[in-house]
Amino acid sequence: MENIKRQYPFTAIVGQDNMKKALLLNIINPSLGGVLIRGEKGTAKSTAVRALADLLPERKEISGCKFHCNPEEISECCDECVGLIESGDVTKHKGKMRVVDLPVSATEDRVVGTLDIEHAIKMGEKKFESGILAEANRNILYIDEVNLLDDHVVDILLDSAAMGVNTIEREGISYTHPARFVLVGTMNPEEGDLRPQLLDRFGLVVEVMGERETEKRVEVIKRRLEYEDNPEKFVERYIQDNNILNERVMKAKSLLSKVGYTDEILDIVARLSIELEVDGHRADITMVKTAVTNAAFNGRTKVMKEDLLEAAELVLPHRMRRRPFEEGVLDFERVKQIIG
Amino acid sequence: MENIKRQYPFTAIVGQDNMKKALLLNIINPSLGGVLIRGEKGTAKSTAVRALADLLPERKEISGCKFHCNPEEISECCDECVGLIESGDVTKHKGKMRVVDLPVSATEDRVVGTLDIEHAIKMGEKKFESGILAEANRNILYIDEVNLLDDHVVDILLDSAAMGVNTIEREGISYTHPARFVLVGTMNPEEGDLRPQLLDRFGLVVEVMGERETEKRVEVIKRRLEYEDNPEKFVERYIQDNNILNERVMKAKSLLSKVGYTDEILDIVARLSIELEVDGHRADITMVKTAVTNAAFNGRTKVMKEDLLEAAELVLPHRMRRRPFEEGVLDFERVKQIIG
Amino acid sequence: MENIKRQYPFTAIVGQDNMKKALLLNIINPSLGGVLIRGEKGTAKSTAVRALADLLPERKEISGCKFHCNPEEISECCDECVGLIESGDVTKHKGKMRVVDLPVSATEDRVVGTLDIEHAIKMGEKKFESGILAEANRNILYIDEVNLLDDHVVDILLDSAAMGVNTIEREGISYTHPARFVLVGTMNPEEGDLRPQLLDRFGLVVEVMGERETEKRVEVIKRRLEYEDNPEKFVERYIQDNNILNERVMKAKSLLSKVGYTDEILDIVARLSIELEVDGHRADITMVKTAVTNAAFNGRTKVMKEDLLEAAELVLPHRMRRRPFEEGVLDFERVKQIIG
Amino acid sequence: MENIKRQYPFTAIVGQDNMKKALLLNIINPSLGGVLIRGEKGTAKSTAVRALADLLPERKEISGCKFHCNPEEISECCDECVGLIESGDVTKHKGKMRVVDLPVSATEDRVVGTLDIEHAIKMGEKKFESGILAEANRNILYIDEVNLLDDHVVDILLDSAAMGVNTIEREGISYTHPARFVLVGTMNPEEGDLRPQLLDRFGLVVEVMGERETEKRVEVIKRRLEYEDNPEKFVERYIQDNNILNERVMKAKSLLSKVGYTDEILDIVARLSIELEVDGHRADITMVKTAVTNAAFNGRTKVMKEDLLEAAELVLPHRMRRRPFEEGVLDFERVKQIIG
Amino acid sequence: MENIKRQYPFTAIVGQDNMKKALLLNIINPSLGGVLIRGEKGTAKSTAVRALADLLPERKEISGCKFHCNPEEISECCDECVGLIESGDVTKHKGKMRVVDLPVSATEDRVVGTLDIEHAIKMGEKKFESGILAEANRNILYIDEVNLLDDHVVDILLDSAAMGVNTIEREGISYTHPARFVLVGTMNPEEGDLRPQLLDRFGLVVEVMGERETEKRVEVIKRRLEYEDNPEKFVERYIQDNNILNERVMKAKSLLSKVGYTDEILDIVARLSIELEVDGHRADITMVKTAVTNAAFNGRTKVMKEDLLEAAELVLPHRMRRRPFEEGVLDFERVKQIIG
Amino acid sequence: MENIKRQYPFTAIVGQDNMKKALLLNIINPSLGGVLIRGEKGTAKSTAVRALADLLPERKEISGCKFHCNPEEISECCDECVGLIESGDVTKHKGKMRVVDLPVSATEDRVVGTLDIEHAIKMGEKKFESGILAEANRNILYIDEVNLLDDHVVDILLDSAAMGVNTIEREGISYTHPARFVLVGTMNPEEGDLRPQLLDRFGLVVEVMGERETEKRVEVIKRRLEYEDNPEKFVERYIQDNNILNERVMKAKSLLSKVGYTDEILDIVARLSIELEVDGHRADITMVKTAVTNAAFNGRTKVMKEDLLEAAELVLPHRMRRRPFEEGVLDFERVKQIIG
Repeated sequence: MENIKRQYPFTAIVGQDNMKKALLLNIINPSLGGVLIRGEKGTAKSTAVRALADLLPERKEISGCKFHCNPEEISECCDECVGLIESGDVTKHKGKMRVVDLPVSATEDRVVGTLDIEHAIKMGEKKFESGILAEANRNILYIDEVNLLDDHVVDILLDSAAMGVNTIEREGISYTHPARFVLVGTMNPEEGDLRPQLLDRFGLVVEVMGERETEKRVEVIKRRLEYEDNPEKFVERYIQDNNILNERVMKAKSLLSKVGYTDEILDIVARLSIELEVDGHRADITMVKTAVTNAAFNGRTKVMKEDLLEAAELVLPHRMRRRPFEEGVLDFERVKQIIG
Repeated sequence: MENIKRQYPFTAIVGQDNMKKALLLNIINPSLGGVLIRGEKGTAKSTAVRALADLLPERKEISGCKFHCNPEEISECCDECVGLIESGDVTKHKGKMRVVDLPVSATEDRVVGTLDIEHAIKMGEKKFESGILAEANRNILYIDEVNLLDDHVVDILLDSAAMGVNTIEREGISYTHPARFVLVGTMNPEEGDLRPQLLDRFGLVVEVMGERETEKRVEVIKRRLEYEDNPEKFVERYIQDNNILNERVMKAKSLLSKVGYTDEILDIVARLSIELEVDGHRADITMVKTAVTNAAFNGRTKVMKEDLLEAAELVLPHRMRRRPFEEGVLDFERVKQIIG
Repeated sequence: MENIKRQYPFTAIVGQDNMKKALLLNIINPSLGGVLIRGEKGTAKSTAVRALADLLPERKEISGCKFHCNPEEISECCDECVGLIESGDVTKHKGKMRVVDLPVSATEDRVVGTLDIEHAIKMGEKKFESGILAEANRNILYIDEVNLLDDHVVDILLDSAAMGVNTIEREGISYTHPARFVLVGTMNPEEGDLRPQLLDRFGLVVEVMGERETEKRVEVIKRRLEYEDNPEKFVERYIQDNNILNERVMKAKSLLSKVGYTDEILDIVARLSIELEVDGHRADITMVKTAVTNAAFNGRTKVMKEDLLEAAELVLPHRMRRRPFEEGVLDFERVKQIIG
Repeated sequence: MENIKRQYPFTAIVGQDNMKKALLLNIINPSLGGVLIRGEKGTAKSTAVRALADLLPERKEISGCKFHCNPEEISECCDECVGLIESGDVTKHKGKMRVVDLPVSATEDRVVGTLDIEHAIKMGEKKFESGILAEANRNILYIDEVNLLDDHVVDILLDSAAMGVNTIEREGISYTHPARFVLVGTMNPEEGDLRPQLLDRFGLVVEVMGERETEKRVEVIKRRLEYEDNPEKFVERYIQDNNILNERVMKAKSLLSKVGYTDEILDIVARLSIELEVDGHRADITMVKTAVTNAAFNGRTKVMKEDLLEAAELVLPHRMRRRPFEEGVLDFERVKQIIG
Repeated sequence: MENIKRQYPFTAIVGQDNMKKALLLNIINPSLGGVLIRGEKGTAKSTAVRALADLLPERKEISGCKFHCNPEEISECCDECVGLIESGDVTKHKGKMRVVDLPVSATEDRVVGTLDIEHAIKMGEKKFESGILAEANRNILYIDEVNLLDDHVVDILLDSAAMGVNTIEREGISYTHPARFVLVGTMNPEEGDLRPQLLDRFGLVVEVMGERETEKRVEVIKRRLEYEDNPEKFVERYIQDNNILNERVMKAKSLLSKVGYTDEILDIVARLSIELEVDGHRADITMVKTAVTNAAFNGRTKVMKEDLLEAAELVLPHRMRRRPFEEGVLDFERVKQIIG
Repeated sequence: MENIKRQYPFTAIVGQDNMKKALLLNIINPSLGGVLIRGEKGTAKSTAVRALADLLPERKEISGCKFHCNPEEISECCDECVGLIESGDVTKHKGKMRVVDLPVSATEDRVVGTLDIEHAIKMGEKKFESGILAEANRNILYIDEVNLLDDHVVDILLDSAAMGVNTIEREGISYTHPARFVLVGTMNPEEGDLRPQLLDRFGLVVEVMGERETEKRVEVIKRRLEYEDNPEKFVERYIQDNNILNERVMKAKSLLSKVGYTDEILDIVARLSIELEVDGHRADITMVKTAVTNAAFNGRTKVMKEDLLEAAELVLPHRMRRRPFEEGVLDFERVKQIIG
């Protein structure tokens, strides 16, 4: 049942530039805090996320570790891997980043895993059956219809995302493993929105809607029909585009740590948040990091005002303070004015 | 308890042309995305779906496979069948497409099947008790009173319908099998409607109501009374009509891949969606595919504007954007004007 | 605890002619689709249903079958009986039709029966513990306070009533048996009404209320007090009346298949439904069948306009389309005019 | 923990004549259908019911029967007792009627009893653990705060009360035993009322309120304080009064079957119900029976108009038709006028 | 974990005279029916109840009885103790009255205790695991945040309080033990009120609020800070005051049975209830008993009008009839006028 | 998975002085009653609490005790430790105070621990599996999103916090251990507020919001980015600041018992509460204690008016009486005036 060879190619998606950029920036810089894609039905939200699979980079993993720990970052390894690294007894291999699904009906046990208490008591050792969060470590965690997710599971996800670890506790025994993932959610706001606290935890948010130009719309139809007619052939046609994009992402990834910015950039960011009455400081930090990542994506090592403008579009709208009976709305003209 | 010989014949249904066409188009082209039949009580909705049974085509199946995998489409086979095909060790037989019922009270276990965890752990092999979705693969999945279905089961169905597979996960073990089916639902809108996300997943939607002409209405009564009086005799009388329709469907099926269309057709479709403010792109693609199938049903290999008109009637009405306190309504005169 | 000898006699019920007729017509013709009796508290609704017991006919049953299959109608037999009939190894006996109670608190298991899964797996044969629907086959199924029945059980009943079979499915194993019954429900509308879909499934509906004439009312009191004073003696006094009525019912039953009608009758029925805006076609068919049965009840073999008038009164009122905030009401004068 | 010797005596209750009469009439004639006592907090409702215990008659019971079957009324005996009587092997003893409590938190199992299924299957005989309804047979069943009782338990009680039997069904096995009881309920309408269907099933309903005359009120206080100070002594003081009342009740019981009435009485009852728009016929019958019992209580063998007047007060008020947003109210002046 | 030596002393509580008096009167006369203390947050409600512990009297208990039965009152003993007393085989000891906590989250099992059914069946003897109500017998039962208690547990408490016994029934087996306790509840009305039926069952109700005089308020702060600084020393300072109060309580207890009152007193009480439209008779009786206890507390053997005035303040306010949308309020000036 | 070395340093938090002061005062004086931090999303609420870890003092613990009992305060020890101390058989070691997390999804069992009933019965000794409250003893108990905590768990926490002990009761067996902790909660009031009773139990409450000055805001961004870039290096830079603060806290702790205040101070506190209509007395006492602690934090042994002013800001706002539809608001100018 391996569908990957027939996946609709990322580069074959017509338009939806913000959505595509937000996804790519998160691959380049997994610390951006994920993406939430909100939009009307039938706008290729899921297709785009699944298409990402082709563009995901390879990275080193410690062999045999179910959390695919990073052999080069001991502070982010699980206890078992820390032991292996310290004893010098570690084997590595290359593995590809993946899109891990979290079905909207998943139970808490399925998400966090389970601890076999009886075994722990009898044998004196912890036996952990890993869940989706284990699989998600160093991967993309994808939730379709994230607004319909059970509140309790949402809380667990938020905690893990914030701490970078998943802790499972049962009857006084606890087990902790790394759970650093890029959280990607899609939703149709017609069916209810997320509560503000969860919205804020997504680094970037994009709104998508159907194309409103005839030519582009025809192009959407044509590609989809060609794809359905012969998926293998269609996929092949985009392999080269995908490869080019892939290289651009890999290059941006390696450039990322070299990107610099002036104090003026920070000053602008702070003024944006103050003048627009953005809640809290998470917006500021994410804006700087998004601008930095955007610069790298464009092959630059210096953040420019245009990076800030692009970042503001992805970072600010969902963080405007809401007043009772009002939706928080971003005054984009004011943003441009402040950035100058 | 085999009732099939006494089933009310499809060709004996008086009127309700849209409903009958929508069902037939889905048999000719199972990728259209199913039909939802909405209508007042007592309008033969269920009768029509059950009557379809007689018209369903035979197709090749891999013997012994509980998903009736297609021996000629390895990419849509289950893992077991892939193994058989690759080892050249495959036996085939002819089987008839079926209408599989999903009762409104079905539990999740009954729908997706169950995994015997204990067996998996003890024996090291997965033991899967298949559910309704296994039976539904390559068949019609029928849900009466679909609007009363549990939200959780609806989510599972949508996921399976979208992916073409059913994945069952329990305690870290997962099993996946193909689940490509034509989803057919019936409902009485007096008892509550579907949420927009589910409505959109049905390729076609038709509204039915009782006949409003005396002669036709008398005909309905007569046939029903004759049928109830002596089902066997009544069924026999329509065997020929059914056979003719059956052949027409089979011919259309074989014609389908040969049907072509001009760019103007796509252009019209895109303009329809933009000018009528249809949500998302699913409508466009389904409209083209429905028009193509309609052409085949009429024995043509070229899509004509009239195909588009017929398709629009089945595809657009339920996809109009809803505004608060308004039902989305399709302006059919505008449709005709745009199609020209 | 056998109360039947002391049951209040059907012929001792004062007035309530529509209710009595509706019940008798269903005994004569079990395909009419049952009766729903709606009325204020204390109007002998339950008493009438229970009193029916005395009037129920004897019929042939296959011995040892828990569904009391009909040896003369193989297409309505259970699988076991089909086997017996085909092997020629069938024993028959005469049994009386019964009133089977479905208590409002009955669980799904109690209604549909249970499948012993463990037994099925270990022994390789299905073991079915039959429920109320098994008992109900070829009998009257009576539900007091039907409007308080659990929605889930209602759905099961509707499915069984529509299909004539009860199918029980557990963990992939299924068992089907015939479940053809006359559904009789009673309810007090003060305590909430049925949803339209369920209302429509009852062939006939009657409204009852207390007598409003002093003499009749005194007669009601007298008979009830006499009955309470000495049930055995009271019952005896009505044995002859009951016997006469019983014979009339049996005669009507044998006459039923000989009743004919002109095309004008069908034409009137169709016009009634169209002009009065009745939903769907179920009303038309039931109206014809009720008129036919009424003719037989009156010893005639030809349907007359007066049969139609009587049928309309039992069939139409609960099928008028409801508009928001309006109760559907039947304009009986208009009915008479159309029937002419 | 036997409190009975210290029970507040029935004859020591000051005022509340309607409540006391309603309770006594039900002891004299257990077929009246029970009493519901509605009233503000602190009005000795429970006290009165418990005090009844002293006045309850002795009657013959079949020894060893947990339903205390009546050896002289075989049609009301359980199956076991029927067997004993028919085999002539029956032992009897005298037992006192009792007040059986049904706590508002009682579960269904506790009320109807339980069937030991495993035992039934293994041993081939039914093993029934009896519940409160078994104990209640031929006794008074008392429910304090009856308006707070679970709806499901209410339904069970109504069914038993109406049929005079309790039937318990589990997995296809059923057991039936007699359950004829005088249902007595108390409630404070401040905390919600009963639904109409349940109200109607209580034969008599009385409203109680605190005394509004100083002298009587002082008397209430005095007696209560004396009672609390020395219950034994207080109880002794009323033994004679209680004995006198007891004899009067026993005499009325023996007189009951001899009481007669003229047709005029029935005529008045019927006219009362029609003119006052009482729902159903239960009111009429209960009114006649109450009047008869009242005559016996007054040592007469003929029903007089004054009996009817007293009966109307206990029978009619809770059976007036309710209109939306209106409480049904009895126009007592009109009642007197009609009785004449 | 014994905190009692460091308990904040009752006599160290500043002000709140009504609350303190209500608690003491209930210790002197446990038949007053308990106290409900309603008040804003932080007003030492719990502190006062817990401080009572020091003032609670010793009394004789039957040794080994988990209900601490009173060897001198056989009618209030459990069955086991009745047996012991009757056989003359009883050992006694002195035990102190206690404050027993009922946590707001207590389950029914925890409150009423549990019956070991299996043991009862196998061994033929009842095995009762006692609950909080067993411990509460002859003690104070304290519920903090009584308005948040589960409705079902409230019902159980009310039943026990009214009957003086706790009856536990499981599967047809029942066990009864004495449960006579002084019910003390505290609550903050900001978080919802009690339903009227429960309010009425509390003999006395007091409202508390923070001190509104600077000096007293400073005194409250000082004492609390001294207490927190060195609880042992603080407690010691009040030992003498506590002892004096303790003696006064013990003396009042012995005086109680000697207190008398004139008929005029009863007459005033009745008139109060009638003129102020108090619901039911419970208020009257509690008012007399409270006045009697108050006289004893003041060393008198005759009830005076001032006792009545003090009693009215504790007994009447929460028993005023409530009208829709109105809180029942006591007109205290009218009370004084009537008392005269 | 030890993250502590990389924790964001407390002294690196920009601004938010009230929040930082409130946390530090509670470490200096754990009897202040905890802190609740309310604020918009993204304001470093959690970061601050977790950063506290570095500043927490060491203290003596009894070795092997899961409640880390204090060997120098026998009245606060668990029963086991009391035994050890009394037998002179106690071993001690130094341990650091910790931040213990209470996840919002924690069950009651997880919070209070569990009692192994079977073991207790079989072995005659209590076996207690400790929960979060055991771990919390003598530590900080931290609840993020405290306003989303289950009501039932909130009640348990309040009880433990008030009594300083955790009592677990199951089937009549109970176990008690010390549970004295500093309760720290954080919440976003956008998502619902706490009920008044819980608010009042927090000694101090602070409101936080994002910085509104550009420079400070830039500083926040810079530090956060530096920290994310290289946590180890960043942490090191603040080690000295943290050490200085740590010493100041330790000094204040030792000074605390020496701080004195004049009667005028208490007089002002009382007047503040009376004139501002603060509910109850808890505010007064906490204000004095907070002022005392503040003096110690500033190296003084005498409370000054400015300590009172600072205390009022932390203690009063959340204790203003709420009126229907009004938020209680503190008039800070009036506070200054009263303090003088």
